[in-house]
Amino acid sequence: MKTVAIAGVGLIGASFGLALRRAGFTGPILGVSSPGAIADALACGAIDAGVPLEEALERADLVLLAQPILRIIDTLGRMAPLVRPGTLVTDAGSTKVHICAQGAALPPGTFLGGHPMAGKEVRGAAAGEAALFEGRTWVLTPSDPAELDAAPAREFRSWLERIGARILILSPTEHDAVVAITSHLPQMLSTTLGVTVDSALTRADQLLAGGPGLIDMTRLAMSSFEIWSDILATNTEPVRQALGRFIETLEAIRARIGDPSAEADFDRAAALARRLRES
Amino acid sequence: MKTVAIAGVGLIGASFGLALRRAGFTGPILGVSSPGAIADALACGAIDAGVPLEEALERADLVLLAQPILRIIDTLGRMAPLVRPGTLVTDAGSTKVHICAQGAALPPGTFLGGHPMAGKEVRGAAAGEAALFEGRTWVLTPSDPAELDAAPAREFRSWLERIGARILILSPTEHDAVVAITSHLPQMLSTTLGVTVDSALTRADQLLAGGPGLIDMTRLAMSSFEIWSDILATNTEPVRQALGRFIETLEAIRARIGDPSAEADFDRAAALARRLRES
Repeated sequence: MKTVAIAGVGLIGASFGLALRRAGFTGPILGVSSPGAIADALACGAIDAGVPLEEALERADLVLLAQPILRIIDTLGRMAPLVRPGTLVTDAGSTKVHICAQGAALPPGTFLGGHPMAGKEVRGAAAGEAALFEGRTWVLTPSDPAELDAAPAREFRSWLERIGARILILSPTEHDAVVAITSHLPQMLSTTLGVTVDSALTRADQLLAGGPGLIDMTRLAMSSFEIWSDILATNTEPVRQALGRFIETLEAIRARIGDPSAEADFDRAAALARRLRES
Repeated sequence: MKTVAIAGVGLIGASFGLALRRAGFTGPILGVSSPGAIADALACGAIDAGVPLEEALERADLVLLAQPILRIIDTLGRMAPLVRPGTLVTDAGSTKVHICAQGAALPPGTFLGGHPMAGKEVRGAAAGEAALFEGRTWVLTPSDPAELDAAPAREFRSWLERIGARILILSPTEHDAVVAITSHLPQMLSTTLGVTVDSALTRADQLLAGGPGLIDMTRLAMSSFEIWSDILATNTEPVRQALGRFIETLEAIRARIGDPSAEADFDRAAALARRLRES
Protein backbone atom coordinates (compact mmCIF):
# COMPACT_ATOMS: atom_id res chain seq x y z
CA MET A 1 0.00 0.00 0.00
CA LYS A 2 1.94 2.97 -1.33
CA THR A 3 -0.71 5.62 -1.93
CA VAL A 4 -4.00 6.18 -0.16
CA ALA A 5 -6.97 8.26 -1.31
CA ILE A 6 -9.78 9.44 0.95
CA ALA A 7 -12.99 10.67 -0.66
CA GLY A 8 -14.84 12.90 1.78
CA VAL A 9 -12.44 14.44 4.28
CA GLY A 10 -14.86 15.25 7.10
CA LEU A 11 -14.33 14.02 10.65
CA ILE A 12 -13.96 10.32 9.74
CA GLY A 13 -11.94 10.78 6.53
CA ALA A 14 -9.54 13.29 8.06
CA SER A 15 -9.12 11.18 11.20
CA PHE A 16 -8.25 8.16 9.04
CA GLY A 17 -5.50 10.19 7.31
CA LEU A 18 -4.13 11.43 10.64
CA ALA A 19 -4.31 7.94 12.14
CA LEU A 20 -2.46 6.34 9.20
CA ARG A 21 0.25 8.98 9.43
CA ARG A 22 0.70 8.49 13.16
CA ALA A 23 0.82 4.71 12.66
CA GLY A 24 3.79 5.09 10.32
CA PHE A 25 2.31 5.30 6.83
CA THR A 26 4.74 7.38 4.78
CA GLY A 27 3.21 7.38 1.28
CA PRO A 28 1.07 10.15 -0.21
CA ILE A 29 -2.46 10.60 1.18
CA LEU A 30 -4.76 12.18 -1.40
CA GLY A 31 -8.08 13.86 -0.61
CA VAL A 32 -11.15 14.06 -2.85
CA SER A 33 -13.62 16.56 -1.46
CA SER A 34 -15.06 20.06 -1.74
CA PRO A 35 -12.47 22.89 -1.82
CA GLY A 36 -13.37 23.97 1.74
CA ALA A 37 -12.97 20.45 3.17
CA ILE A 38 -9.70 19.96 1.26
CA ALA A 39 -8.34 23.21 2.73
CA ASP A 40 -9.26 22.12 6.28
CA ALA A 41 -7.79 18.63 5.77
CA LEU A 42 -4.57 20.06 4.35
CA ALA A 43 -4.35 22.51 7.26
CA CYS A 44 -4.58 19.75 9.89
CA GLY A 45 -2.16 17.47 8.02
CA ALA A 46 -4.71 14.75 7.26
CA ILE A 47 -3.92 14.75 3.52
CA ASP A 48 -1.02 15.82 1.32
CA ALA A 49 -3.01 17.04 -1.69
CA GLY A 50 -6.51 17.50 -2.99
CA VAL A 51 -7.14 15.79 -6.34
CA PRO A 52 -10.12 14.90 -8.58
CA LEU A 53 -11.61 11.40 -8.19
CA GLU A 54 -10.12 10.31 -11.54
CA GLU A 55 -6.58 11.12 -10.41
CA ALA A 56 -7.14 9.49 -7.01
CA LEU A 57 -8.25 6.24 -8.67
CA GLU A 58 -5.29 6.34 -11.03
CA ARG A 59 -2.76 6.68 -8.21
CA ALA A 60 -4.13 5.03 -5.06
CA ASP A 61 -3.83 1.42 -3.86
CA LEU A 62 -6.43 2.00 -1.19
CA VAL A 63 -9.47 4.25 -1.60
CA LEU A 64 -11.61 5.01 1.46
CA LEU A 65 -15.03 6.51 0.74
CA ALA A 66 -15.90 8.52 3.86
CA GLN A 67 -18.78 10.48 2.35
CA PRO A 68 -22.48 10.48 3.29
CA ILE A 69 -24.15 7.16 2.39
CA LEU A 70 -25.97 8.30 -0.76
CA ARG A 71 -22.78 10.01 -2.00
CA ILE A 72 -20.82 6.78 -1.46
CA ILE A 73 -23.36 4.89 -3.58
CA ASP A 74 -23.12 7.58 -6.26
CA THR A 75 -19.30 7.55 -6.24
CA LEU A 76 -19.22 3.73 -6.47
CA GLY A 77 -21.55 3.94 -9.47
CA ARG A 78 -19.15 6.23 -11.34
CA MET A 79 -16.03 4.24 -10.49
CA ALA A 80 -16.19 1.05 -12.59
CA PRO A 81 -14.46 2.45 -15.70
CA LEU A 82 -11.77 4.20 -13.64
CA VAL A 83 -10.59 1.76 -10.98
CA ARG A 84 -7.29 -0.10 -11.54
CA PRO A 85 -6.91 -3.88 -10.93
CA GLY A 86 -5.44 -4.48 -7.48
CA THR A 87 -6.84 -1.30 -5.94
CA LEU A 88 -8.94 -1.89 -2.82
CA VAL A 89 -12.00 0.34 -2.46
CA THR A 90 -13.60 0.46 0.98
CA ASP A 91 -15.98 2.81 2.75
CA ALA A 92 -17.09 4.16 6.11
CA GLY A 93 -20.86 4.32 5.55
CA SER A 94 -23.21 3.64 8.46
CA THR A 95 -25.43 1.20 6.54
CA LYS A 96 -24.05 -1.57 4.36
CA VAL A 97 -26.61 -3.53 2.29
CA HIS A 98 -27.20 -0.85 -0.37
CA ILE A 99 -23.55 0.25 -0.45
CA CYS A 100 -22.20 -3.31 -0.76
CA ALA A 101 -24.74 -4.10 -3.52
CA GLN A 102 -23.38 -1.13 -5.47
CA GLY A 103 -19.78 -2.13 -4.64
CA ALA A 104 -20.44 -5.59 -6.08
CA ALA A 105 -20.78 -3.94 -9.51
CA LEU A 106 -17.02 -3.19 -9.44
CA PRO A 107 -14.57 -5.86 -10.68
CA PRO A 108 -14.43 -8.87 -8.30
CA GLY A 109 -12.20 -8.33 -5.26
CA THR A 110 -12.23 -4.53 -5.64
CA PHE A 111 -14.75 -3.54 -2.97
CA LEU A 112 -14.88 -4.38 0.75
CA GLY A 113 -17.51 -2.58 2.83
CA GLY A 114 -16.64 -1.12 6.22
CA HIS A 115 -18.06 0.89 9.11
CA PRO A 116 -15.90 2.46 11.83
CA MET A 117 -18.01 2.79 15.00
CA ALA A 118 -16.52 6.13 15.92
CA GLY A 119 -17.83 9.64 15.88
CA LYS A 120 -18.00 12.89 17.77
CA GLU A 121 -20.60 15.58 18.18
CA VAL A 122 -18.44 17.93 16.13
CA ARG A 123 -18.09 17.46 12.38
CA GLY A 124 -15.46 18.39 9.80
CA ALA A 125 -11.74 17.79 9.22
CA ALA A 126 -10.76 20.38 11.83
CA ALA A 127 -12.20 18.05 14.50
CA GLY A 128 -10.18 15.09 13.14
CA GLU A 129 -8.08 13.06 15.58
CA ALA A 130 -5.36 10.46 14.97
CA ALA A 131 -6.72 8.54 17.99
CA LEU A 132 -10.38 8.50 16.90
CA PHE A 133 -10.40 4.79 16.05
CA GLU A 134 -8.33 3.61 19.00
CA GLY A 135 -10.13 0.88 20.90
CA ARG A 136 -13.18 1.38 18.67
CA THR A 137 -14.80 -1.28 16.53
CA TRP A 138 -14.28 -1.10 12.75
CA VAL A 139 -16.82 -3.44 11.14
CA LEU A 140 -15.86 -5.07 7.82
CA THR A 141 -18.75 -6.45 5.78
CA PRO A 142 -17.63 -8.81 3.00
CA SER A 143 -20.46 -9.99 0.77
CA ASP A 144 -18.35 -13.16 0.44
CA PRO A 145 -15.84 -14.07 3.23
CA ALA A 146 -13.19 -14.70 0.52
CA GLU A 147 -13.00 -10.90 0.03
CA LEU A 148 -10.99 -10.76 3.27
CA ASP A 149 -8.24 -13.06 1.97
CA ALA A 150 -6.93 -11.09 -1.01
CA ALA A 151 -3.58 -9.36 -0.42
CA PRO A 152 -4.93 -5.75 -0.54
CA ALA A 153 -7.64 -6.64 2.01
CA ARG A 154 -5.10 -8.29 4.29
CA GLU A 155 -2.87 -5.23 4.12
CA PHE A 156 -5.80 -2.90 4.85
CA ARG A 157 -6.72 -5.00 7.90
CA SER A 158 -3.18 -4.78 9.21
CA TRP A 159 -3.34 -0.97 8.96
CA LEU A 160 -6.68 -0.97 10.81
CA GLU A 161 -4.98 -2.87 13.60
CA ARG A 162 -2.06 -0.44 13.59
CA ILE A 163 -4.42 2.53 14.06
CA GLY A 164 -5.87 0.74 17.10
CA ALA A 165 -9.24 -0.35 15.68
CA ARG A 166 -10.91 -3.62 16.72
CA ILE A 167 -12.09 -5.48 13.64
CA LEU A 168 -15.53 -7.13 13.66
CA ILE A 169 -16.67 -9.16 10.64
CA LEU A 170 -20.40 -9.13 9.80
CA SER A 171 -22.25 -9.76 6.54
CA PRO A 172 -23.90 -6.60 5.12
CA THR A 173 -27.37 -7.89 6.11
CA GLU A 174 -26.27 -8.86 9.61
CA HIS A 175 -24.53 -5.47 10.01
CA ASP A 176 -27.65 -3.53 9.11
CA ALA A 177 -29.85 -5.59 11.44
CA VAL A 178 -27.35 -5.24 14.31
CA VAL A 179 -26.84 -1.47 13.97
CA ALA A 180 -30.62 -1.02 13.64
CA ILE A 181 -30.70 -2.30 17.24
CA THR A 182 -27.44 -0.90 18.66
CA SER A 183 -27.35 2.50 16.95
CA HIS A 184 -30.49 3.44 14.99
CA LEU A 185 -32.92 2.36 17.73
CA PRO A 186 -31.17 4.49 20.42
CA GLN A 187 -31.24 7.49 18.04
CA MET A 188 -34.96 7.10 17.31
CA LEU A 189 -35.73 6.67 21.03
CA SER A 190 -33.88 9.88 21.87
CA THR A 191 -35.70 11.76 19.10
CA THR A 192 -39.07 10.32 20.15
CA LEU A 193 -38.37 11.17 23.80
CA GLY A 194 -37.69 14.79 22.80
CA VAL A 195 -40.95 14.96 20.84
CA THR A 196 -42.90 13.30 23.68
CA VAL A 197 -41.54 15.63 26.36
CA ASP A 198 -42.23 18.63 24.13
CA SER A 199 -45.83 17.56 23.55
CA ALA A 200 -46.56 16.42 27.12
CA LEU A 201 -45.41 19.44 29.12
CA THR A 202 -47.99 22.16 29.45
CA ARG A 203 -45.82 24.97 30.84
CA ALA A 204 -42.25 26.00 30.01
CA ASP A 205 -41.11 25.92 33.66
CA GLN A 206 -42.00 22.21 33.95
CA LEU A 207 -38.84 21.56 31.97
CA LEU A 208 -36.95 22.58 35.13
CA ALA A 209 -38.08 19.22 36.53
CA GLY A 210 -35.82 17.49 33.99
CA GLY A 211 -32.85 15.93 35.73
CA PRO A 212 -29.50 14.54 34.54
CA GLY A 213 -31.24 11.40 33.22
CA LEU A 214 -33.26 13.41 30.71
CA ILE A 215 -30.11 15.27 29.67
CA ASP A 216 -28.35 11.95 28.89
CA MET A 217 -31.34 10.53 27.06
CA THR A 218 -31.80 13.55 24.78
CA ARG A 219 -28.16 14.04 23.71
CA LEU A 220 -28.62 11.95 20.55
CA ALA A 221 -31.75 13.97 19.74
CA MET A 222 -29.41 16.81 18.75
CA SER A 223 -27.87 14.71 15.93
CA SER A 224 -27.93 16.13 12.44
CA PHE A 225 -30.87 14.97 10.30
CA GLU A 226 -28.61 15.39 7.26
CA ILE A 227 -26.74 12.25 8.37
CA TRP A 228 -29.78 10.36 9.67
CA SER A 229 -31.83 10.96 6.56
CA ASP A 230 -29.45 8.73 4.54
CA ILE A 231 -29.22 6.12 7.29
CA LEU A 232 -32.99 5.81 7.63
CA ALA A 233 -33.52 5.82 3.84
CA THR A 234 -31.08 2.93 3.39
CA ASN A 235 -32.07 0.88 6.46
CA THR A 236 -35.82 1.46 6.62
CA GLU A 237 -37.04 -2.09 7.20
CA PRO A 238 -34.47 -3.15 9.84
CA VAL A 239 -35.13 0.09 11.77
CA ARG A 240 -38.90 -0.44 11.59
CA GLN A 241 -38.37 -3.98 12.89
CA ALA A 242 -36.13 -2.77 15.70
CA LEU A 243 -38.73 -0.17 16.74
CA GLY A 244 -41.47 -2.81 16.53
CA ARG A 245 -39.47 -5.10 18.80
CA PHE A 246 -38.86 -2.23 21.23
CA ILE A 247 -42.57 -1.32 21.33
CA GLU A 248 -43.53 -4.93 22.12
CA THR A 249 -40.97 -5.05 24.93
CA LEU A 250 -42.12 -1.68 26.29
CA GLU A 251 -45.77 -2.82 26.27
CA ALA A 252 -44.78 -5.86 28.35
CA ILE A 253 -42.70 -3.77 30.76
CA ARG A 254 -45.49 -1.19 31.00
CA ALA A 255 -47.85 -3.93 32.19
CA ARG A 256 -45.39 -4.78 34.99
CA ILE A 257 -45.01 -1.17 36.27
CA GLY A 258 -45.61 -1.09 40.01
CA ASP A 259 -45.25 -4.88 40.25
CA PRO A 260 -42.25 -6.54 41.96
CA SER A 261 -41.71 -8.64 38.80
CA ALA A 262 -40.28 -5.49 37.16
CA GLU A 263 -37.07 -6.22 39.08
CA ALA A 264 -36.15 -8.88 36.49
CA ASP A 265 -36.37 -6.22 33.72
CA PHE A 266 -34.08 -3.89 35.68
CA ASP A 267 -31.61 -6.71 36.37
CA ARG A 268 -31.49 -7.84 32.73
CA ALA A 269 -31.01 -4.30 31.40
CA ALA A 270 -28.35 -3.46 34.00
CA ALA A 271 -26.42 -6.62 33.12
CA LEU A 272 -26.48 -5.67 29.41
CA ALA A 273 -25.35 -2.12 30.22
CA ARG A 274 -22.43 -3.46 32.25
CA ARG A 275 -21.41 -5.97 29.54
CA LEU A 276 -21.48 -3.15 27.02
CA ARG A 277 -19.07 -1.11 29.16
CA GLU A 278 -16.72 -4.05 29.59
CA SER A 279 -16.67 -5.04 25.91
CA MET B 1 -34.59 27.98 62.31
CA LYS B 2 -32.25 26.97 65.13
CA THR B 3 -32.06 23.19 64.89
CA VAL B 4 -32.39 20.94 61.85
CA ALA B 5 -33.04 17.19 61.75
CA ILE B 6 -32.45 14.99 58.73
CA ALA B 7 -34.04 11.54 58.67
CA GLY B 8 -32.14 9.32 56.22
CA VAL B 9 -28.57 10.55 55.82
CA GLY B 10 -27.75 8.98 52.46
CA LEU B 11 -26.50 11.03 49.52
CA ILE B 12 -29.34 13.59 49.57
CA GLY B 13 -29.69 13.89 53.35
CA ALA B 14 -25.95 14.22 53.96
CA SER B 15 -25.56 16.70 51.08
CA PHE B 16 -28.34 18.85 52.59
CA GLY B 17 -26.47 18.95 55.92
CA LEU B 18 -23.19 19.86 54.20
CA ALA B 19 -24.92 22.48 52.03
CA LEU B 20 -26.63 24.14 55.03
CA ARG B 21 -23.35 24.27 56.89
CA ARG B 22 -21.51 25.81 53.94
CA ALA B 23 -24.33 28.34 53.48
CA GLY B 24 -23.80 29.60 57.04
CA PHE B 25 -26.22 27.60 59.18
CA THR B 26 -24.62 27.41 62.64
CA GLY B 27 -27.21 25.48 64.71
CA PRO B 28 -27.15 21.75 65.48
CA ILE B 29 -27.86 19.34 62.62
CA LEU B 30 -29.26 16.05 63.92
CA GLY B 31 -29.34 12.80 61.94
CA VAL B 32 -31.90 10.01 62.26
CA SER B 33 -30.66 6.93 60.44
CA SER B 34 -29.11 3.49 60.77
CA PRO B 35 -25.89 3.33 62.86
CA GLY B 36 -23.74 2.85 59.72
CA ALA B 37 -25.24 5.84 57.92
CA ILE B 38 -24.95 7.99 61.07
CA ALA B 39 -21.25 7.06 61.36
CA ASP B 40 -20.62 8.02 57.69
CA ALA B 41 -22.57 11.28 58.04
CA LEU B 42 -20.70 12.21 61.24
CA ALA B 43 -17.37 11.39 59.54
CA CYS B 44 -18.03 13.73 56.61
CA GLY B 45 -19.38 16.51 58.83
CA ALA B 46 -22.94 16.41 57.47
CA ILE B 47 -24.51 16.06 60.95
CA ASP B 48 -23.45 16.83 64.52
CA ALA B 49 -25.17 13.91 66.25
CA GLY B 50 -27.27 10.84 65.59
CA VAL B 51 -30.51 10.77 67.60
CA PRO B 52 -33.77 8.78 67.69
CA LEU B 53 -36.75 10.20 65.76
CA GLU B 54 -38.52 11.18 69.00
CA GLU B 55 -35.60 13.35 70.12
CA ALA B 56 -35.24 14.89 66.65
CA LEU B 57 -38.91 15.91 66.64
CA GLU B 58 -38.59 17.34 70.13
CA ARG B 59 -35.62 19.53 69.23
CA ALA B 60 -35.80 20.45 65.52
CA ASP B 61 -37.54 23.40 63.85
CA LEU B 62 -37.05 21.84 60.42
CA VAL B 63 -37.20 18.11 59.72
CA LEU B 64 -36.16 16.83 56.28
CA LEU B 65 -37.20 13.26 55.46
CA ALA B 66 -34.62 12.04 52.93
CA GLN B 67 -35.47 8.35 53.15
CA PRO B 68 -36.82 6.00 50.45
CA ILE B 69 -40.42 6.87 49.52
CA LEU B 70 -42.18 4.10 51.44
CA ARG B 71 -40.06 4.86 54.53
CA ILE B 72 -41.04 8.53 54.32
CA ILE B 73 -44.72 7.53 54.28
CA ASP B 74 -44.13 5.24 57.24
CA THR B 75 -42.24 7.92 59.21
CA LEU B 76 -44.96 10.52 58.53
CA GLY B 77 -47.54 8.04 59.82
CA ARG B 78 -45.73 7.72 63.15
CA MET B 79 -45.12 11.45 63.60
CA ALA B 80 -48.50 12.98 64.46
CA PRO B 81 -48.29 12.49 68.26
CA LEU B 82 -44.66 13.66 68.39
CA VAL B 83 -44.38 16.78 66.23
CA ARG B 84 -44.30 20.21 67.96
CA PRO B 85 -46.42 23.17 66.75
CA GLY B 86 -44.32 25.41 64.53
CA THR B 87 -42.00 22.63 63.30
CA LEU B 88 -41.84 22.33 59.51
CA VAL B 89 -41.64 18.79 58.16
CA THR B 90 -40.55 18.44 54.55
CA ASP B 91 -39.18 15.59 52.44
CA ALA B 92 -37.07 14.72 49.42
CA GLY B 93 -39.11 11.85 47.96
CA SER B 94 -39.23 11.37 44.18
CA THR B 95 -43.04 11.03 44.01
CA LYS B 96 -45.40 13.33 45.84
CA VAL B 97 -49.11 12.39 45.74
CA HIS B 98 -48.93 9.54 48.27
CA ILE B 99 -46.40 11.31 50.49
CA CYS B 100 -48.35 14.58 50.58
CA ALA B 101 -51.60 12.71 51.34
CA GLN B 102 -49.88 11.17 54.36
CA GLY B 103 -48.34 14.54 55.31
CA ALA B 104 -51.82 16.07 55.31
CA ALA B 105 -52.64 13.91 58.35
CA LEU B 106 -50.21 16.02 60.43
CA PRO B 107 -51.49 19.24 62.07
CA PRO B 108 -52.28 21.95 59.46
CA GLY B 109 -49.20 23.86 58.25
CA THR B 110 -46.76 21.18 59.47
CA PHE B 111 -45.94 19.39 56.21
CA LEU B 112 -44.66 20.76 52.90
CA GLY B 113 -43.63 18.22 50.26
CA GLY B 114 -40.42 18.64 48.28
CA HIS B 115 -38.24 16.97 45.68
CA PRO B 116 -34.68 18.06 44.95
CA MET B 117 -33.84 17.15 41.32
CA ALA B 118 -30.29 16.13 42.13
CA GLY B 119 -28.53 12.83 42.32
CA LYS B 120 -25.40 10.94 41.48
CA GLU B 121 -24.62 7.42 40.45
CA VAL B 122 -22.98 6.83 43.84
CA ARG B 123 -25.07 6.52 46.97
CA GLY B 124 -24.47 7.10 50.69
CA ALA B 125 -23.33 9.93 52.95
CA ALA B 126 -19.68 9.49 51.93
CA ALA B 127 -20.62 10.72 48.42
CA GLY B 128 -22.39 13.78 49.87
CA GLU B 129 -21.46 17.21 48.50
CA ALA B 130 -22.22 20.69 49.77
CA ALA B 131 -22.68 21.79 46.13
CA LEU B 132 -25.09 19.01 45.11
CA PHE B 133 -28.13 21.31 44.89
CA GLU B 134 -26.37 24.26 43.29
CA GLY B 135 -28.18 25.31 40.12
CA ARG B 136 -30.50 22.31 40.48
CA THR B 137 -34.26 22.48 40.75
CA TRP B 138 -35.85 21.82 44.17
CA VAL B 139 -39.57 21.26 43.61
CA LEU B 140 -41.95 22.24 46.43
CA THR B 141 -45.41 20.66 46.26
CA PRO B 142 -47.92 22.39 48.54
CA SER B 143 -51.32 20.69 48.62
CA ASP B 144 -52.64 24.23 49.22
CA PRO B 145 -50.59 27.25 48.01
CA ALA B 146 -51.10 28.88 51.46
CA GLU B 147 -48.61 26.31 52.88
CA LEU B 148 -45.84 28.39 51.32
CA ASP B 149 -46.75 31.55 53.25
CA ALA B 150 -46.27 30.41 56.85
CA ALA B 151 -43.10 31.71 58.51
CA PRO B 152 -41.34 28.29 58.79
CA ALA B 153 -41.96 27.61 55.07
CA ARG B 154 -40.65 31.06 54.12
CA GLU B 155 -37.51 30.49 56.18
CA PHE B 156 -36.98 27.05 54.62
CA ARG B 157 -37.31 28.56 51.12
CA SER B 158 -34.70 31.19 51.94
CA TRP B 159 -32.28 28.43 52.99
CA LEU B 160 -32.97 26.55 49.76
CA GLU B 161 -32.01 29.70 47.88
CA ARG B 162 -28.86 30.07 49.98
CA ILE B 163 -27.73 26.52 49.08
CA GLY B 164 -28.12 27.43 45.41
CA ALA B 165 -31.29 25.51 44.57
CA ARG B 166 -33.87 26.85 42.09
CA ILE B 167 -37.34 26.54 43.53
CA LEU B 168 -40.19 25.26 41.33
CA ILE B 169 -43.73 25.13 42.71
CA LEU B 170 -46.00 22.33 41.48
CA SER B 171 -49.05 20.67 43.02
CA PRO B 172 -48.42 17.04 44.09
CA THR B 173 -50.52 15.74 41.18
CA GLU B 174 -48.83 18.01 38.65
CA HIS B 175 -45.40 17.02 40.03
CA ASP B 176 -46.08 13.31 39.62
CA ALA B 177 -47.38 13.75 36.06
CA VAL B 178 -44.39 15.95 35.10
CA VAL B 179 -41.70 13.66 36.56
CA ALA B 180 -43.44 10.65 34.97
CA ILE B 181 -42.49 12.34 31.68
CA THR B 182 -39.16 13.99 32.53
CA SER B 183 -37.65 11.35 34.81
CA HIS B 184 -39.57 8.06 35.01
CA LEU B 185 -40.11 7.78 31.24
CA PRO B 186 -36.36 8.18 30.46
CA GLN B 187 -35.57 5.53 33.10
CA MET B 188 -38.07 3.04 31.66
CA LEU B 189 -36.80 3.69 28.11
CA SER B 190 -33.23 2.99 29.15
CA THR B 191 -34.26 -0.21 30.93
CA THR B 192 -36.39 -1.32 27.97
CA LEU B 193 -33.55 -0.53 25.56
CA GLY B 194 -31.22 -2.76 27.60
CA VAL B 195 -33.74 -5.61 27.54
CA THR B 196 -34.39 -5.14 23.80
CA VAL B 197 -30.69 -5.14 22.88
CA ASP B 198 -30.12 -8.19 25.07
CA SER B 199 -32.95 -10.10 23.41
CA ALA B 200 -32.23 -8.98 19.83
CA LEU B 201 -28.54 -9.75 19.53
CA THR B 202 -27.76 -13.30 18.57
CA ARG B 203 -24.00 -13.37 19.24
CA ALA B 204 -21.96 -11.79 22.04
CA ASP B 205 -19.54 -10.06 19.63
CA GLN B 206 -22.40 -8.10 18.02
CA LEU B 207 -22.31 -5.92 21.14
CA LEU B 208 -19.01 -4.54 19.77
CA ALA B 209 -21.18 -2.72 17.22
CA GLY B 210 -22.59 -0.58 20.04
CA GLY B 211 -21.29 2.95 19.81
CA PRO B 212 -21.21 5.93 22.20
CA GLY B 213 -24.94 6.52 21.61
CA LEU B 214 -25.86 3.15 23.09
CA ILE B 215 -23.55 3.83 26.04
CA ASP B 216 -25.39 7.11 26.79
CA MET B 217 -28.80 5.57 26.38
CA THR B 218 -28.13 2.64 28.75
CA ARG B 219 -26.54 4.57 31.64
CA LEU B 220 -29.86 4.91 33.48
CA ALA B 221 -30.44 1.17 33.01
CA MET B 222 -27.82 0.63 35.72
CA SER B 223 -29.97 2.46 38.32
CA SER B 224 -30.84 0.60 41.50
CA PHE B 225 -34.23 -1.17 41.44
CA GLU B 226 -34.39 -0.62 45.20
CA ILE B 227 -35.06 3.07 44.51
CA TRP B 228 -37.21 2.56 41.40
CA SER B 229 -39.43 -0.03 43.04
CA ASP B 230 -40.85 2.65 45.40
CA ILE B 231 -41.12 5.24 42.62
CA LEU B 232 -43.03 2.93 40.31
CA ALA B 233 -45.25 1.62 43.12
CA THR B 234 -46.28 5.18 44.07
CA ASN B 235 -46.59 6.62 40.55
CA THR B 236 -47.97 3.67 38.60
CA GLU B 237 -50.73 5.38 36.62
CA PRO B 238 -48.82 8.51 35.55
CA VAL B 239 -45.88 6.33 34.42
CA ARG B 240 -48.23 4.04 32.48
CA GLN B 241 -49.75 7.10 30.83
CA ALA B 242 -46.31 8.51 29.97
CA LEU B 243 -45.27 5.19 28.40
CA GLY B 244 -48.57 5.05 26.51
CA ARG B 245 -48.00 8.54 25.13
CA PHE B 246 -44.43 7.60 24.15
CA ILE B 247 -45.58 4.42 22.37
CA GLU B 248 -48.16 6.41 20.36
CA THR B 249 -45.51 8.93 19.36
CA LEU B 250 -43.04 6.18 18.45
CA GLU B 251 -45.65 4.42 16.30
CA ALA B 252 -46.19 7.65 14.37
CA ILE B 253 -42.45 8.29 13.99
CA ARG B 254 -41.92 4.65 12.96
CA ALA B 255 -44.36 5.16 10.10
CA ARG B 256 -42.27 8.12 8.89
CA ILE B 257 -38.92 6.24 8.91
CA GLY B 258 -37.22 6.68 5.55
CA ASP B 259 -39.54 9.56 4.65
CA PRO B 260 -38.31 13.17 4.43
CA SER B 261 -41.16 14.21 6.77
CA ALA B 262 -39.10 12.67 9.62
CA GLU B 263 -37.02 15.85 9.54
CA ALA B 264 -39.75 17.67 11.50
CA ASP B 265 -39.46 15.06 14.29
CA PHE B 266 -35.69 15.52 14.44
CA ASP B 267 -36.06 19.32 14.49
CA ARG B 268 -38.67 19.30 17.24
CA ALA B 269 -36.68 16.90 19.44
CA ALA B 270 -33.41 18.80 18.89
CA ALA B 271 -35.11 22.08 19.86
CA LEU B 272 -36.41 20.49 23.08
CA ALA B 273 -32.96 19.06 23.87
CA ARG B 274 -31.39 22.50 23.42
CA ARG B 275 -34.03 24.25 25.55
CA LEU B 276 -33.42 21.67 28.27
CA ARG B 277 -29.70 22.48 28.26
CA GLU B 278 -30.34 26.21 28.42
CA SER B 279 -32.93 26.04 31.21
